[in-house]
Amino acid sequence: MHVGLISYTPDPEGVIAAAARISVSNVSALDLKEKQTPERVAGLLKYLLSAGHLSPFEHASFTFAIDGISRVTSHQLVRHRLASYTQQSQRYVSFKKLDFVTPNTIAAKPDWLAKYNEAVQNAHRLYCEMLDAGIPAEDARYILPNAAETRLVMTMNARELMNAAGLRLCLRAQWEIIQLFDYVKREVEKVAPLIAEQLQAKCYRLGYCDERESCGLFPTRQ
Amino acid sequence: MHVGLISYTPDPEGVIAAAARISVSNVSALDLKEKQTPERVAGLLKYLLSAGHLSPFEHASFTFAIDGISRVTSHQLVRHRLASYTQQSQRYVSFKKLDFVTPNTIAAKPDWLAKYNEAVQNAHRLYCEMLDAGIPAEDARYILPNAAETRLVMTMNARELMNAAGLRLCLRAQWEIIQLFDYVKREVEKVAPLIAEQLQAKCYRLGYCDERESCGLFPTRQ
Amino acid sequence: MHVGLISYTPDPEGVIAAAARISVSNVSALDLKEKQTPERVAGLLKYLLSAGHLSPFEHASFTFAIDGISRVTSHQLVRHRLASYTQQSQRYVSFKKLDFVTPNTIAAKPDWLAKYNEAVQNAHRLYCEMLDAGIPAEDARYILPNAAETRLVMTMNARELMNAAGLRLCLRAQWEIIQLFDYVKREVEKVAPLIAEQLQAKCYRLGYCDERESCGLFPTRQ
Amino acid sequence: MHVGLISYTPDPEGVIAAAARISVSNVSALDLKEKQTPERVAGLLKYLLSAGHLSPFEHASFTFAIDGISRVTSHQLVRHRLASYTQQSQRYVSFKKLDFVTPNTIAAKPDWLAKYNEAVQNAHRLYCEMLDAGIPAEDARYILPNAAETRLVMTMNARELMNAAGLRLCLRAQWEIIQLFDYVKREVEKVAPLIAEQLQAKCYRLGYCDERESCGLFPTRQ
Repeated sequence: MHVGLISYTPDPEGVIAAAARISVSNVSALDLKEKQTPERVAGLLKYLLSAGHLSPFEHASFTFAIDGISRVTSHQLVRHRLASYTQQSQRYVSFKKLDFVTPNTIAAKPDWLAKYNEAVQNAHRLYCEMLDAGIPAEDARYILPNAAETRLVMTMNARELMNAAGLRLCLRAQWEIIQLFDYVKREVEKVAPLIAEQLQAKCYRLGYCDERESCGLFPTRQ
Repeated sequence: MHVGLISYTPDPEGVIAAAARISVSNVSALDLKEKQTPERVAGLLKYLLSAGHLSPFEHASFTFAIDGISRVTSHQLVRHRLASYTQQSQRYVSFKKLDFVTPNTIAAKPDWLAKYNEAVQNAHRLYCEMLDAGIPAEDARYILPNAAETRLVMTMNARELMNAAGLRLCLRAQWEIIQLFDYVKREVEKVAPLIAEQLQAKCYRLGYCDERESCGLFPTRQ
Repeated sequence: MHVGLISYTPDPEGVIAAAARISVSNVSALDLKEKQTPERVAGLLKYLLSAGHLSPFEHASFTFAIDGISRVTSHQLVRHRLASYTQQSQRYVSFKKLDFVTPNTIAAKPDWLAKYNEAVQNAHRLYCEMLDAGIPAEDARYILPNAAETRLVMTMNARELMNAAGLRLCLRAQWEIIQLFDYVKREVEKVAPLIAEQLQAKCYRLGYCDERESCGLFPTRQ
Repeated sequence: MHVGLISYTPDPEGVIAAAARISVSNVSALDLKEKQTPERVAGLLKYLLSAGHLSPFEHASFTFAIDGISRVTSHQLVRHRLASYTQQSQRYVSFKKLDFVTPNTIAAKPDWLAKYNEAVQNAHRLYCEMLDAGIPAEDARYILPNAAETRLVMTMNARELMNAAGLRLCLRAQWEIIQLFDYVKREVEKVAPLIAEQLQAKCYRLGYCDERESCGLFPTRQ
């Protein structure tokens, strides 16, 4: 799995702060953005977060190249609807070589790993044979496993990143999407450390665990 | 594949018409809805469609039980973001028996069909063995093929149904999702024939084909 | 102000419950919906709410006729983007008679009330004169006050109703939109009491107040 | 009215092109973005537009400071739901001086202009008196006219900019929001000329007018 930032709103935290201030100011946001110090931006973001005023965080967006996740995880990921995705197509791309993801619970057991690898290779061999026999890639791919890797470009604004990370960095999420959002967080850290700090399991914001059972990090509400 | 209507906004076309009329009226939409005839509703819907005033169509929603589509198709389907989905989980459900979809291009060729069935069964056998060995379902499923069937509940309003059907009933879409939207259309037909009529490839609305090559139904714009 | 339910997903709570159960079941949601008792539905909704699993609540929608709110409030209301609105147009409707809203802080003081009424009437008189002089309604309306009444049709699903009510039933919201969501709640109560119960200020769900200062209902997080 | 670009996705057209190419490629979008020429980007964008493949245009966002529009226009603007707004509040800001918008149809007639100005000033005078008397700003503002100016920050991606401009640059839209989108277009032109070119009335894309009556630019569909 590899996650890289392709592009993002420059000075994302400054943009959020300037936008937030327009609601209580009578000068242009252009001027507000000019005349703010990093300290003031940091203080304002802290206030917005504590007061649950999250809408200004929508004004900063981040675009990621995500490569080498399984179709298991891409299917989960695109369920976040307040974001934009462009995904590699299994209809239009033929995979002469199949890259695939192996869960640790399988990789850790040599016997199962061997069977797993063999089964993936068998499926891929049949896929290639069907392609050679003239069956369209869009149909041959029905035999490919969930483990098959995919690539996509994802754009998410900071508010939705906080929401999605809140759900996907919870230990009840699956390991692969946890790892994905860990990488996403690392990329955001390079350019927007105050936002990256907020990319954390939802319990940190709530102050309690709202799942059926807690992982131990925070108690449930009772 | 089976598609059934679980629920929908009663009198969907009447609701749309009453909503549309509020924009140019000075009485309550409650009264507008009371005092309209089927003829007037039909005439108004026709006008709204011809004038591209599609937003009132958002006031009528349809909730479908969709069973027996492949994960290929569910992954495509949930890309329509202006809709609500609840999908059967491969994390929390274990599949002792694997239902799966077979493309016609494979089913039509006995040799390939036999190999395809065998490959699916092999993958499913390994899946079951891994479950028995204590590997969690969420990881064992990496070996399951794209062909594995899934179920979901989908709610879409009439405007988005028209948009999604416009894309998915185009002959450039994949056969399985075309079939899905054919069934969706059939279900809508039973309760909202004027809306169902509009569930058709986008070229019918545009008057031309905007894809690279036309299937022949409508010429491209040049 | 008058709020009336024009239409809604029949058996809204049953639809939500059936949808929720599909994620952990291997039978069709059509069957799940058939075979559930009111007790089971109630128990499941309670669980979903406590566990923060709110997405199934999107499958039930409610369509309201909202009449006699000010443009102050309609401008606030339409900021909730996960909903559908059709609003009476000040471009296409001419207002020979102007209905308008008066805040209690003004109505309670006879002197100010008299001045307020007079100012509204003066503005409306000029509006009518401009219409008579051939100035288009869309331009004459620039002189109409924020107090001018409007009508609209709003469709919101249960999840967004809970979110919007959480913000708008908070005592920091303005009195007119609080009143609007009180009426909305009353309408929902008639057809979906378990959902209506959840239409309450966000602090009830959070267990604390996340605004800068608490109204006293719940303490702030510190 | 003043519109200024506060921030935007750097190299917006390059980001869109790289994202689009991932769907048919088997290398990372990071590499695709590196290795593209302006000519290739331009050619690809042209193809995407002609083929109606608009989703990659979502990966580039633009954030505008919009100052000095009337509340008439801000109420229209925020109806575009696939965008983010932070607006100056009439609850939290008191307006000792009232800036306001005057339609040309009124400004062009000295008699009406004088009456209009006087009526706005009268409303503003009462507003100030009510503030002095301790009536909260959020209530005093009910007497302010629709003409009152507001400010906001708006973030929209390129796809939604094309959609919104398609509707708002149509001559059936009101003059003030047409002017707003003219300014928006001018700002986008400075940093993304290929996208700016697409900010035009919807008839240019459709090839015909879908309104009831054409302004003459394109014939209606019949």
